[in-house]
Amino acid sequence: MTDHRIASAGHRAKVMSAEDAALLIAPDTTVGLSGFTASGYPTAVPLALAARIEDEHAAGRPFKLRIWTGASTGPELDGALAKADGIEFRLPYNSDPTCRDRINRGEMAYFDMHLSQVAPVAWQGFLGPLDTAIIQVTGIREDGALIPASSVGNNKTWLDRADQVILEVNRWQNPELLGMHDIYYGTALPPNRVPIPLIRAGDRIGEPCFRCDPDKIVAIVETDRPDRNAGFTAPGADDLAIAGHLLEFLEHEVSKGRLPPSLLPLQSGVGNTANAVLTGLIDAPFEDLSAYTEVIQDGMMALMDSGRLRVASSTALSLSPELTERVNRDMGAYRDRIILRPQEISNHPEVIRRLGCIAMNGMIEADIYGNVNSTHIMGSRIQSGIGGSGDFARNAYISIFMSASTAKGGKISTLVPAVSHVDHINQDVQVIVTEQGLADLRGLSPKQRARVVIDTCAHPSFRPMLEDYYQRAFKGSYGLQTPMLLDEALSWHARFVRTGSMVAN
Amino acid sequence: MTDHRIASAGHRAKVMSAEDAALLIAPDTTVGLSGFTASGYPTAVPLALAARIEDEHAAGRPFKLRIWTGASTGPELDGALAKADGIEFRLPYNSDPTCRDRINRGEMAYFDMHLSQVAPVAWQGFLGPLDTAIIQVTGIREDGALIPASSVGNNKTWLDRADQVILEVNRWQNPELLGMHDIYYGTALPPNRVPIPLIRAGDRIGEPCFRCDPDKIVAIVETDRPDRNAGFTAPGADDLAIAGHLLEFLEHEVSKGRLPPSLLPLQSGVGNTANAVLTGLIDAPFEDLSAYTEVIQDGMMALMDSGRLRVASSTALSLSPELTERVNRDMGAYRDRIILRPQEISNHPEVIRRLGCIAMNGMIEADIYGNVNSTHIMGSRIQSGIGGSGDFARNAYISIFMSASTAKGGKISTLVPAVSHVDHINQDVQVIVTEQGLADLRGLSPKQRARVVIDTCAHPSFRPMLEDYYQRAFKGSYGLQTPMLLDEALSWHARFVRTGSMVAN
Repeated sequence: MTDHRIASAGHRAKVMSAEDAALLIAPDTTVGLSGFTASGYPTAVPLALAARIEDEHAAGRPFKLRIWTGASTGPELDGALAKADGIEFRLPYNSDPTCRDRINRGEMAYFDMHLSQVAPVAWQGFLGPLDTAIIQVTGIREDGALIPASSVGNNKTWLDRADQVILEVNRWQNPELLGMHDIYYGTALPPNRVPIPLIRAGDRIGEPCFRCDPDKIVAIVETDRPDRNAGFTAPGADDLAIAGHLLEFLEHEVSKGRLPPSLLPLQSGVGNTANAVLTGLIDAPFEDLSAYTEVIQDGMMALMDSGRLRVASSTALSLSPELTERVNRDMGAYRDRIILRPQEISNHPEVIRRLGCIAMNGMIEADIYGNVNSTHIMGSRIQSGIGGSGDFARNAYISIFMSASTAKGGKISTLVPAVSHVDHINQDVQVIVTEQGLADLRGLSPKQRARVVIDTCAHPSFRPMLEDYYQRAFKGSYGLQTPMLLDEALSWHARFVRTGSMVAN
Repeated sequence: MTDHRIASAGHRAKVMSAEDAALLIAPDTTVGLSGFTASGYPTAVPLALAARIEDEHAAGRPFKLRIWTGASTGPELDGALAKADGIEFRLPYNSDPTCRDRINRGEMAYFDMHLSQVAPVAWQGFLGPLDTAIIQVTGIREDGALIPASSVGNNKTWLDRADQVILEVNRWQNPELLGMHDIYYGTALPPNRVPIPLIRAGDRIGEPCFRCDPDKIVAIVETDRPDRNAGFTAPGADDLAIAGHLLEFLEHEVSKGRLPPSLLPLQSGVGNTANAVLTGLIDAPFEDLSAYTEVIQDGMMALMDSGRLRVASSTALSLSPELTERVNRDMGAYRDRIILRPQEISNHPEVIRRLGCIAMNGMIEADIYGNVNSTHIMGSRIQSGIGGSGDFARNAYISIFMSASTAKGGKISTLVPAVSHVDHINQDVQVIVTEQGLADLRGLSPKQRARVVIDTCAHPSFRPMLEDYYQRAFKGSYGLQTPMLLDEALSWHARFVRTGSMVAN
């Protein structure tokens, strides 16, 4: 079995147990791990490392690490290390509940970054050195090239930057992944940067494998755990209504000649609403679609299987358990239509703007002027992170944000007088969609935007409150470019924290 | 005189008075004008148009226009049209006091945009057609090519998009401007966009003149008014202190090997602090500097004259009256070292990220987490606009924001618990400098950022208030990723509006 996956004798000599590999990681060091969603992330070494950290803590010895990844990972990595209280600092994105809890209790420093910037910033130097890379791969070729797994993330950069490398060779990953990846080796620090020669979503500009200096590899561990992303439930009525509004908008834009009949490369966030939009495209009158996005989820695969989606570029597969097994089995059939790239390329502003992506992302809340909060509940409690939403929203041809108009059983309005945290400024938000309707904010001044957002997107149970605030803001505002009542702008959030509901008593 | 500037007989036949030209513009239409700062903007036709609008209004006939420009312009354009109440809608940036007043009274719709996006958005179509372009040029060649003036802005796009074109041929502009410009004709709408082949600040990738279909030109007016940007006063103590901190930081980064000895292309906003930094670079230990910026102001010229600055790329010259006359006279000597480009290229995210600009911009306020407000006084009253600050801040190698730590004679703290409006999210703000010190926020979590901002940047008279808020936020916050007191976050601004001071009673 080993021989099939590790074709180089020199590499085979470095195979060891996860426990032995974990001993090679010193406390108070920085570790860069593979993983972008719960795909292609190391499991055995992080679990062994977490066990070791717990032993050290039990013996009264401090043991904490600085953890860099691609984005979120799975429970064997973020979850286990967080439970062991082994993470001092974390970047760039997290969706693990234990990590989230520690972050929001103030016990873990979390640096939430634009995903396109992680690799360049790691090269820039101010984050300090990267001591260890722990990277899951599908196999090792005779020449030492590493066959990537089901996500790419920052693996190229971690392999290049780390002082030592630990590999997990995962037998569950299908060897037919070889050839699906496009690892671009043309990045550099300024003043040596050159144009990224990618002009279509389906272009290949790099190599199928990672390069890695064999002398840096200190351990290789064989594993067989599958990827384990969460499943999706069937879209609800709100999801379907949002998808309906959005598809109608896209059809309208094509009819006006403002979008080509095959649209432009789609970027889609994750979740039920995104899945509803993507599956809705199967029956929409668009042909020959393409996607240039961060992750490929179930709806994207359904669109591809329908024949509507010609090609999809991303940095990770992020499929439900059922689909994971099926797609992994049939990987060879997708190799020419799916391209997995480093996240600095999948999310690169240069490429996103050139391609003119249609960016579709979820949000926590938007305000009447169309500023969007993607990260912080009630302004202070982080949900996951900004991820790639900023990379796409600012550079998209059309930047769309979607959410149901209420949350928590109607106690929260996702349309508020002022967002409690800003991730996307109004200039980067062109369309807002709720189940109530779609607000096309392009070319509108702030007051024109407020009129459309209140009338179109807000839930009827909150609309009169928003209208009342807005009308009074005209009378009490310091200036009237963006009318605002400073004493009340965040009062809805304060009321929720106090009473559990934004509804006025 | 006419013959020298208008070499084409066909064009000469279209020369007319400004008053006659103004008659060609219908009410309720969209007009795209040249001008980026008070450089290269039309004067005679806008003045005649303003007079006509006043006559129409006096006769009880409505007459309003939608006005698109490069950025701010001069009093003969924005000022005159605003005084005549002739502007219904304005984009993308404004610094005219009459316009500002009308905007903040809610009498004029103002669409504040990223400057890189104006031209692409005009092509995208949702803003509607462009009826008339009014463009100042230096001359017209025999083949009909238009020699640009002291700013480029969106002129190429207005000339391409407009149904009819009115030219002002300005005799004050030095004919030796010919050859200084680099008009790039390689842009397109997706899916036909290709890489912008610019890899050094000094590269030329276009043509020296604008193309313009002669059949679209309906009027040519001869003018001779000079550019008229405001003068600068000598930098004050705060400006010099900020410049000192910043230059020390840059030296430190070079010594650490994180910046090359010639730094990276400089982007600099306008104003006294920026001038202090630029002139401070004359005596700093950096050689062979370059600039890739929006406007070239006095300090940049001083740096060039000193021999330290090898080349500067921008979309406009924006010089004090004294320097304007001198530089205009000596234009030929600068033609190889200054490049004037369309603003979609001078501000293009693709190019800014590739070059790795060091972005230095002013701000109205920052909060303890390093979110920056560049546009709105007390959250609602717009000052000028976001301009190119977002283009540069998000894509820069290092994004720096600068301001004195107080304003209004100490009644306003420019460091606050929460900014009243967000233009630059904390991810896009790496360094904040006040006269008190420089906060290097790179790689820090929100709470780590707050610690540095409070300790380093805040004025001693506000520091205890900030510290008190921050400590109480730890106790009263919903989550602790970004501690916040919803009831108090904007209370400093509310107090200022109420009492004229942020100082607590």
